[in-house]
Amino acid sequence: MIEQKSLTLNQICQLTKGRLSGDGETVINRTVRLDEAKPGDISFIAAPKYAKNLENCQATALIVYPEFNVPLTTNLIYVDDPFSSFFMVVQAMTPEMEPLQPGIHPTAIIGDGTTLGKNIAIGPYVIIGKNCKIADNVQIYSGTTILNHVDIGGNTRIYQNVSIREGCVIGERVILHAGAVIGADGFGFRNVNGKIQKIPQLGYVIIEDDVEIGANTCVDRAIFGATRIGKGSKLDNLIQVAHNVVIGENTVIAAQTGIAGSSQLGNGVVIAGQVGIADHIKIGDSAILAAQAGITKDVPPKIVVSGYPAREHFRAKREEAVIRKLPELAKLLSELKKKVAELESTTIKISSNF
Amino acid sequence: MIEQKSLTLNQICQLTKGRLSGDGETVINRTVRLDEAKPGDISFIAAPKYAKNLENCQATALIVYPEFNVPLTTNLIYVDDPFSSFFMVVQAMTPEMEPLQPGIHPTAIIGDGTTLGKNIAIGPYVIIGKNCKIADNVQIYSGTTILNHVDIGGNTRIYQNVSIREGCVIGERVILHAGAVIGADGFGFRNVNGKIQKIPQLGYVIIEDDVEIGANTCVDRAIFGATRIGKGSKLDNLIQVAHNVVIGENTVIAAQTGIAGSSQLGNGVVIAGQVGIADHIKIGDSAILAAQAGITKDVPPKIVVSGYPAREHFRAKREEAVIRKLPELAKLLSELKKKVAELESTTIKISSNF
Amino acid sequence: MIEQKSLTLNQICQLTKGRLSGDGETVINRTVRLDEAKPGDISFIAAPKYAKNLENCQATALIVYPEFNVPLTTNLIYVDDPFSSFFMVVQAMTPEMEPLQPGIHPTAIIGDGTTLGKNIAIGPYVIIGKNCKIADNVQIYSGTTILNHVDIGGNTRIYQNVSIREGCVIGERVILHAGAVIGADGFGFRNVNGKIQKIPQLGYVIIEDDVEIGANTCVDRAIFGATRIGKGSKLDNLIQVAHNVVIGENTVIAAQTGIAGSSQLGNGVVIAGQVGIADHIKIGDSAILAAQAGITKDVPPKIVVSGYPAREHFRAKREEAVIRKLPELAKLLSELKKKVAELESTTIKISSNF
Repeated sequence: MIEQKSLTLNQICQLTKGRLSGDGETVINRTVRLDEAKPGDISFIAAPKYAKNLENCQATALIVYPEFNVPLTTNLIYVDDPFSSFFMVVQAMTPEMEPLQPGIHPTAIIGDGTTLGKNIAIGPYVIIGKNCKIADNVQIYSGTTILNHVDIGGNTRIYQNVSIREGCVIGERVILHAGAVIGADGFGFRNVNGKIQKIPQLGYVIIEDDVEIGANTCVDRAIFGATRIGKGSKLDNLIQVAHNVVIGENTVIAAQTGIAGSSQLGNGVVIAGQVGIADHIKIGDSAILAAQAGITKDVPPKIVVSGYPAREHFRAKREEAVIRKLPELAKLLSELKKKVAELESTTIKISSNF
Repeated sequence: MIEQKSLTLNQICQLTKGRLSGDGETVINRTVRLDEAKPGDISFIAAPKYAKNLENCQATALIVYPEFNVPLTTNLIYVDDPFSSFFMVVQAMTPEMEPLQPGIHPTAIIGDGTTLGKNIAIGPYVIIGKNCKIADNVQIYSGTTILNHVDIGGNTRIYQNVSIREGCVIGERVILHAGAVIGADGFGFRNVNGKIQKIPQLGYVIIEDDVEIGANTCVDRAIFGATRIGKGSKLDNLIQVAHNVVIGENTVIAAQTGIAGSSQLGNGVVIAGQVGIADHIKIGDSAILAAQAGITKDVPPKIVVSGYPAREHFRAKREEAVIRKLPELAKLLSELKKKVAELESTTIKISSNF
Repeated sequence: MIEQKSLTLNQICQLTKGRLSGDGETVINRTVRLDEAKPGDISFIAAPKYAKNLENCQATALIVYPEFNVPLTTNLIYVDDPFSSFFMVVQAMTPEMEPLQPGIHPTAIIGDGTTLGKNIAIGPYVIIGKNCKIADNVQIYSGTTILNHVDIGGNTRIYQNVSIREGCVIGERVILHAGAVIGADGFGFRNVNGKIQKIPQLGYVIIEDDVEIGANTCVDRAIFGATRIGKGSKLDNLIQVAHNVVIGENTVIAAQTGIAGSSQLGNGVVIAGQVGIADHIKIGDSAILAAQAGITKDVPPKIVVSGYPAREHFRAKREEAVIRKLPELAKLLSELKKKVAELESTTIKISSNF
């Protein structure tokens, strides 16, 4: 448990440039969600729609929007942007996470030919292979094992139990979250008379500067050349990036998405959770892929797609709207069929009468 | 390989209170599935529908339902509930997994200010940070690394290669399976002029008592306050729980489900595999979410939903039934169009005749 | 970074039995994708459709198909199968990954009663439990922890941070990629008066010869008996295999697929990414399951299925084609309804005239 630091409401008002209605000497110990608030806590109300059911609110103070006018005995701080102000308070009251102790822990094992920069922090029982290059200010937590010929750029942080395979290249200011696997063999086989034969995976992975890779996410090494994650891109947890995928810059990918072999994603692409992208697909710059979309063909730049198989989102919504009415439409169709049959028999009777 | 303990059929009958047809002195060495059974093995037949293709059954004994009447030379034990009785035999014949050796292994590294309860078992090369509290009877297996300020409740078991980040709080009798990641940064960014900027994730994770977290499952720390898994809830493998999610009590979630940021799940919710829940969604108590459902809006209590986008299951089934007939319905619609056109031309002709 | 070995074009021609148009003494340093090629690099053009936009190609040499006739000053090597020839060059120019140092690292901890074969390589800080059997030529990388009574067959390679639980049996020539979890408890509970009670998981996992298990993939132990992965089957990353699943031989499963409890897959099954298979399902030999399919009932041998709920692929495509036209069909239906109503009123008028 991390104890938060206490602040008085006067200090909080000063920090947020807010207007206090209440007692400035009151001490606040915790920043919490509104429904969790107990005496000693501060929370926030961002907009009128959240200003409900406040009778039982136990918070000692609330950061509220300028027009807030629910009659409460709670201390109130009026600000223009309650969430941003509240988050400033959270930052002020939350102690810095103690970073990894600087220095190389005596139990860390570092292979021959590996060079280490300045001000590095390597935790206990970390393993680094031979002929690696670890730049300045890198932090590597316990349980992480790095094989031979890996380069790691300056100011990169690698959390616990990360596995990095041979020859991968990690940029500067990268964050690899716990359990990530970088450079495992791509999934490449050929069927030789019904026996599945492994194709050697001879490439590597390049993770460019300012990339973040989520917990337990896997980025496979290329069959040859590089699987590449472009500068500034952010990947959430449990994502699969297959061999020879190329992801552009500043692309954001939510959890549990999978990208099959050799697909190429542009810059500024936004991908929601659990999306599947087939192999050899091209996704244009700034395209948006909705959650659970199944991408079976190329997506042009700036297009929003959804559904399985994925199609232009506005079109998909129209199709979905009809699907919602299908039982009624099927009934109508069946009624029309009957009526047309009646009409036909009547019409024919009439015609034959002439 | 774990060798099972042997029992005689007399011992098995005594255990299951079954009625033996056969030789009570016969020794049984293994409990297996019916299709795997070899001489020396016991298996079971739960109901008449499974009492097929028994000609080549090599099992030495079978536990069967009272009315079982297939003529076999195999030893038979008649019981009221064959599966439960068989599982009692499995439990009796399977040796206890040797638990982790009690004591702190000399290679474990434990930070300053960390307190340890009684009867703790900590495996080799385990790392525990500073200012943690480890309660009585906790077991922590090798490869697990725990950062600073983490609390772990009594009788909790943590398997291999688990990563727990700073400040997380784990309850009593919790089980964390191998590779789970608790408290990695939530996926929070803001787009500042096309550059993706990290929002610091200042919260933590609370895992309440009697929770089970599956292998390689990820529970992210909150942006502030807690991501919370309620008492008695059970999460399967490879699940993603994003920042600020709150899961109620006794909720059960199958593998590969993903829950996006700030969503709130009630008590007794049942979620099948590969479900995706969007952010800021509320799932009511005892709701049931079918496999692969894509939840895009709130789900009321006790409602069963399925499909993408998820909707009430009974309604979804009716829509699906029509989708199954769409090619035929489209053909019918096209025929009706032609017939109506013919009718119109005929009718007009008739009308013009008057 | 792994430096590739250099070859001259003469050496490359000899290797690929290609016909050179250019200077055989030219030295090549890297094998790359066409769009990455810089001076000193070789790439390839597999077919006329890829022979585009070559004006700015900086490659020093290209391996091309026999009829290639784009006028370029680049060195060219003509071969029958450019990809295969290029991959031969990649293999020749890529240095062998240095395997794990043979021998047992002095920091490895190996339990009592465990037997070790010849020529084993065990990395630093590896933990192996009691009464295990490790056969000849096994390689185990750092961070891997193996509990008691585990058997590992000859020539098997286990990468970093793998977790293997008690009593599992791993065959010969198996590859377990980093972060895989073998033998965690199956997800088995019963609801006892609203409290979720754990059912002990008393079985184990059998992984047969020549299987490959992807990074962070989970194979749960059986409730009793074995969860089994058949000989020669290949599983990609982040896959969930639940308790008591049986997978046949030479079955290939792409990333993020989930297989629920007790399902049985045949031989030669091909499963694309993110497929979900419900519990107690049977998948016939050589069936093909398309990406993201949701399998809710048995699939016969050799059948291709897709969609949710999965159905015969050709049928699903026909249904999808109609879904794509639903907004237009709904409009047509509404028009027909109006026309039929008009026809009915006309017809009735006529009829009443008689």
